[in-house]
This record gives sequence, structure tokens and C-alpha cells, in this order.
Amino acid sequence: MKFTKPFQVPADEIEKRTRKIQAELARNNIDGVFIVQRTDLFYFSGTAQNGFLYIPVEGAPLLFIKQYLPRARSESSITEIIGIRSIKDIPGLIRDFHGQLPAVLGFELDVLPVNDFQFYKKLFKTTSHVDASGLILKIRQVKSEWEIEQMEVTAQMTSLTFEYMKSVIRPGITEMEFSGMFEAFARTIGQGGKLRVRNYQTEGYPWHVLSGKTGALPGLLDSPASGKGTSAAFPVGASHKKLCRNEPIMVDMGSVLNGYHMDETRMFAIESMPEKAIKACRACIEIHNAVLEKARPGVTLGRLFDLSVKMAEQLGYAENYLGVPGHRVTFIGHGIGLELIEAPFIARNREDCLETGMVFALEPKMVFENEFPAGIESVFQVTDKGARLISKVPVGIFVC
Amino acid sequence: MKFTKPFQVPADEIEKRTRKIQAELARNNIDGVFIVQRTDLFYFSGTAQNGFLYIPVEGAPLLFIKQYLPRARSESSITEIIGIRSIKDIPGLIRDFHGQLPAVLGFELDVLPVNDFQFYKKLFKTTSHVDASGLILKIRQVKSEWEIEQMEVTAQMTSLTFEYMKSVIRPGITEMEFSGMFEAFARTIGQGGKLRVRNYQTEGYPWHVLSGKTGALPGLLDSPASGKGTSAAFPVGASHKKLCRNEPIMVDMGSVLNGYHMDETRMFAIESMPEKAIKACRACIEIHNAVLEKARPGVTLGRLFDLSVKMAEQLGYAENYLGVPGHRVTFIGHGIGLELIEAPFIARNREDCLETGMVFALEPKMVFENEFPAGIESVFQVTDKGARLISKVPVGIFVC
Repeated sequence: MKFTKPFQVPADEIEKRTRKIQAELARNNIDGVFIVQRTDLFYFSGTAQNGFLYIPVEGAPLLFIKQYLPRARSESSITEIIGIRSIKDIPGLIRDFHGQLPAVLGFELDVLPVNDFQFYKKLFKTTSHVDASGLILKIRQVKSEWEIEQMEVTAQMTSLTFEYMKSVIRPGITEMEFSGMFEAFARTIGQGGKLRVRNYQTEGYPWHVLSGKTGALPGLLDSPASGKGTSAAFPVGASHKKLCRNEPIMVDMGSVLNGYHMDETRMFAIESMPEKAIKACRACIEIHNAVLEKARPGVTLGRLFDLSVKMAEQLGYAENYLGVPGHRVTFIGHGIGLELIEAPFIARNREDCLETGMVFALEPKMVFENEFPAGIESVFQVTDKGARLISKVPVGIFVC
Repeated sequence: MKFTKPFQVPADEIEKRTRKIQAELARNNIDGVFIVQRTDLFYFSGTAQNGFLYIPVEGAPLLFIKQYLPRARSESSITEIIGIRSIKDIPGLIRDFHGQLPAVLGFELDVLPVNDFQFYKKLFKTTSHVDASGLILKIRQVKSEWEIEQMEVTAQMTSLTFEYMKSVIRPGITEMEFSGMFEAFARTIGQGGKLRVRNYQTEGYPWHVLSGKTGALPGLLDSPASGKGTSAAFPVGASHKKLCRNEPIMVDMGSVLNGYHMDETRMFAIESMPEKAIKACRACIEIHNAVLEKARPGVTLGRLFDLSVKMAEQLGYAENYLGVPGHRVTFIGHGIGLELIEAPFIARNREDCLETGMVFALEPKMVFENEFPAGIESVFQVTDKGARLISKVPVGIFVC
């Protein structure tokens, strides 16, 4: 089974997204938004070519393409697609089309580097410049039915990849080698490329294989365990340590197809796993299932987090839940979609509520210092009736 | 042969780099630099853990670690390593140690997002805030002997990976599948993780396999050819197209070991390649060799670029060199080191000169629209006597 058929974002998706951002712009007295970042550009235009998208609070969006026009035209349903030689042409083209430049112009200030922003500020001289990233992320965090369908397909692909892992895991191969094997497989069935992350310091990669003692190492990541990595230069994820029999092996795999990500974790063992580890993994699954049970529209994100902590305590894992003492993380899940990690976060003290259409990667995890990591991660959508798993990987421990 | 032995940046490297940036700070009347970006942090401290590095114009650098202290301590030779609970503690800790806060503080404004910078500006209230990224990149672009040695080891690894490609390339596998095969191999011998790039819009990935007609597609990249990619969401690099006999296949592989990158391109063919393509590949090799011949300290980067264009014209490739008409790139090479693509660029009109210790990826390429891409890419260092190849992949066309 392969997942490689041609793909296009439907025109009505782009229209709905455009109307949503225009409503947000109106509500916030912003006259337009200038979209530069690749994922946002793809979200609002359907193309990821080298371009810039201007969405006015009213009227037609203008897509400016810097390099090769034909591909953008074939990919995007935006009506006004304009080839440009230089980005300096853009303000004039906006004025030509819309009669005026926006007085208040929004930018993606959560990702735009300072020097780039200085350049854009000079380019749009007549406007005041505000942060529109919050509005963009707010819209993106609620997925349409079409988007959920895309994520279902990614989930089918990753489910096959986890099946493949079971068939090839063996003692003596390194964590990196194992990751190469399943990634090579994923590419044969459709794996779509690079995992996209928003924050400039976050490094998305699909080889987060953490085995045994070094797998439990805390470190760089804002995650219960960081793993050993390959060197001080890349001190996270899979290392050149060999996989052994009877040790807990955590595989946390990010994946992407047609722009839509999955992020899923399962515990593996070769032949067997110590009883202590099996119990911990089962406790994580219990917490995972309990959170899913309680996740429905109107519940605050902070309450789901607290529930999970309380349950971990009751199960006897207060010392291990979400990291080693002094280095615990304060979240158990994150939004996911066109980026591997998106808003919102199922985190301590978060008072915002779950909404129908939100999609989360839920990852209750534990760390036993100098012993092993344990946990599970699945992607679920929030429906009117409650949580529904998008992930299709069986919920369990894989002893191979 | 494996390249997985433990690795640490020597203390005297860190000291030399510190002295260099301090001299630049003094020359520019900046009292200190606050380093946040991971690659710069690793360059100046030897650790890539979650931290912040303050280097004053005089005196000891302070490394603040936000999460797990023991790993930073074991990796970095910096003397003053301080664990912090919150980044808000940093200004007080600087004042405690150095007696005062810097009046003028430098930041990495080429990468720091606007919202992050606003936060840092509020944190360091008593200072004025300037861009220090140019100074950092200027220092990083000249490599030490130790750094060249690291790149030599990466080059040994990639040379074996190209050998492996020859042994497994075959008709009927897709570009993505082929890329998965050689990447899995690379991970068994030492491949160190994610390719690091500086610009927030640049996506480094090691599966740039461009075959035949779709391989010649221009698009998103500031590169002669972008390839087809897997979908509109990721429209660059390898696609799910199958490799065929008798077609030109370009493999442009970025690679990394212990933080140091290689970026190398070779043309492959299965059984044979059309005569027209062979001639074009040979022309690229001629240009590549001629540029290497002329590359020595004191020559301007722009002159090397011009030389290559002139040669391409003389060889009859004016229409194809560096891209299709209307979409040509204006560079033939880029710095490389801790990032896959670094300053400076061998580009049109660049009047800065080559210096001993600079390292470049040189990539004269051609595009035959609707037919195929052609080209070569090698990494070389600038020595007092001229260019010296670091790349160890044989210079030639690989017909397998």
C-alpha cells in the first residue's frame, strides 16, 4: 500500500481559511496580513513555492511568486498570482490592485527574524506594523474535516511503518541504524519529507529512538528524556548505542505526508522487558486512556494536565512522571497539523479550552534515571462527543 | 569503517574563538554578546544543550544552562557554567559576576524572531541592543586547522556513502526510496543527525535526488533546479518518481558528523547516459576544476563567479548554466561548516576576497529544461597556496 497519489488543497478550503483570517483581521482592526513563513503560506494558498501572500481585511488575496510561476499556478487556487522580479515591487502591486496600502499591516512576528522585519518595515513605509501570528495560529489550531482526512492518511502510513519496525528490530543494530531502516521503509510508501517545526530553536527529526539507560538521559529537549544523540553537536535522539535484548526501547516517530504530520510513540522490547518497565509503560497507557476519556470541548487544557499528574501520583509514579526531579516538563501534549508541534499545549495552568476540530499529540511519559524511559504518544481529534484517535498504531507495548 | 568515536571541542579552540569575538566586540564598541542560537552556542562553548552564552568584551564568558547541567559541564570547556531556573535570572547573574551589565549588548538579529527579541530587550533594560550576527559569521567563516580536520572526517564518511550509492542504485526504485537506502547506510557508519541551516526559510535535507525531466524542474529553491519533491507541501528534492536506465540522476547530498557538514553532488546513470548529458556533466567538471585552479587568497568571490559564467559561455552552455532563462541563480558556491550553508557566497558582484581557512561548497550546475539537470559539487578549503579539496568523492560521472 502506497500513499503517493497527487495532492492539491481544494479551493473551498483556501476560501474558508481566507474568510476566517479576514474576520480575525477585522475584529482586531488590522487592514491586512503579509504572510512569508512557508507553512503559513501553504496553509493560506495551497502552494509552498517561493512567495509572499498578502491577505487584505476585505477583497482578494494577492500571491506574489519570486521564482518559478507555473508551479504556484498549478498548485494554488488563489486567483491573483503575480510573478515578481524583486520583493520591492510588492507595495506598488498592492496599491495598483487594492487602491491603497494597508494602514495597519500584520506580520508573523513569532518567526520573522529582526533583520528581516526591519527590511519589511522599510518596504511598507506608510503602515504601522503589528503581530498577527497569534491570529494565524488560532485559526490553524482548529482543523477542518478535510484536514482531519489528510491526517488520517498520514496515520495509515505511520501505522504500516510501526508494523515494519516490529519485523526488523533486532539486537546488535544501533539506534541510528534502526531509525535508518524504518525511515527508508517509510520513504518507499510515501513519507513526504522534512518535519516542519515553527520555533527556530526546535529541531524536528524522525529518529527519536531512545533505548535503555542512555535513552533516559535528560538534556536539551523540553521533553521528559532527550536521549544521547550522536555527539555534543547533536545531543538528542538516536545514538550509536546498540539495541539489546530485555531493555525498554522508546520509538517516538514524527512523520509527514502532504504536509500533515503524525507524532507517535510506542515502547518496544526485544524478547522481553523488565517487569518494572512493563508496569511503567502500562501506567502511561492508563494515563493516556484516562486523558482521552476526559478530553472534550469545554474542558481546559490545564485540567487535562492536572488529571494526568494526579493519576501518575496515584499509580505510584510521582518521582518519574514527565521527567527526573528538577527537570520535569509541564505539558503532556501539543497541537499538530502542518507543523509537528503547534499551539495549543496541554500544559499546566492553561485555562483555554479544548474545541471541536483541535488535534493533539498526547504523550504521557516517564523517566527512570539511569534505567530507561517509558511512555506512549497518540494523535487524537476533539469531536463534539469527545476524543477520537486518529492514530492507528495499536495501543500497547511491542515485544518482538 | 565507522566514525562514531566520542567527540569534544578542545578547550584551546573555544579560547581562540572567544578571543576573536572579543576583539571584534572591542573594535565595534560593543560591551558583550548574548548568544542564543544553537549553532553559535555550540561554536563558542562546545555544547549544544539548552543554554545562553554571554561573552563580555573582556573577561570570562558565562554559560547559563536552563535544563540539565551535567551534560553541558561534561561537554563544554567554559569555566563558568551556571544552572538557571528561569532566563529572567540571567541579568542579575551577569551583574553579580562582572560587576555591571553591558551598556551595549549584541544579539544574533539575523535569526532572532522579533517577539523573542522584544523579550530579551525587556530583560536587559539598561542596555542598548545591536546586531552582532555579522561579527559572529565573519569569525565562523574562517576555519581552524582543527575544524578542517573535522570536515575531513565527515568527507571520509560521505565518500563511503557515495561508494555505497553505486552499489545499490537500480532502475525501478523511486528517488525517495534510493535516498532512504543511502541515508540508512550513512547512519550505520556515523551520520550525525540533522543538517543545520541558518535561515528560517531554508530547509536542509539529505534527499536531494533529481532524476531526468522532473529533476530539471525549477521551483522553490534558490538553486538551478529544485526537483519535483513529494507534493505541493514539500515541492523540492526527491520525489516518488522511479529511477530509469539511461537518464541523468543528480545526487546532491548534505551530510553531518560531529556538527561539521559536507555538501557534495555527483551525477549518476544506470547503464548509460545520453551523450548530450555526459558532455554537459563534463563541462561542469571543467568549470569546477578551473574555479579551483583560480581560487586563492586575495581573489574576489565575484571574480570566481564571473570566471565560471564566462567559461560556461565559451563551452556553449550560456542557455543552461545556473538555471533556465529567467530563473538563474547568481552564485556558484557557499561557505560550509557548522551550518550546511554559511557566509560567504561565491556570487555575482561580491567584492570580498577569499581568505586562508575559508571552506566552500562549489557547485557549478546546469539545467536543460524538460530534459535533465547536470552538475557537480565539492567542498574545498582555501590554503596559502590555493584551493585544496576536502571532498574525497572521486571527481567524475558515476555510470553504474
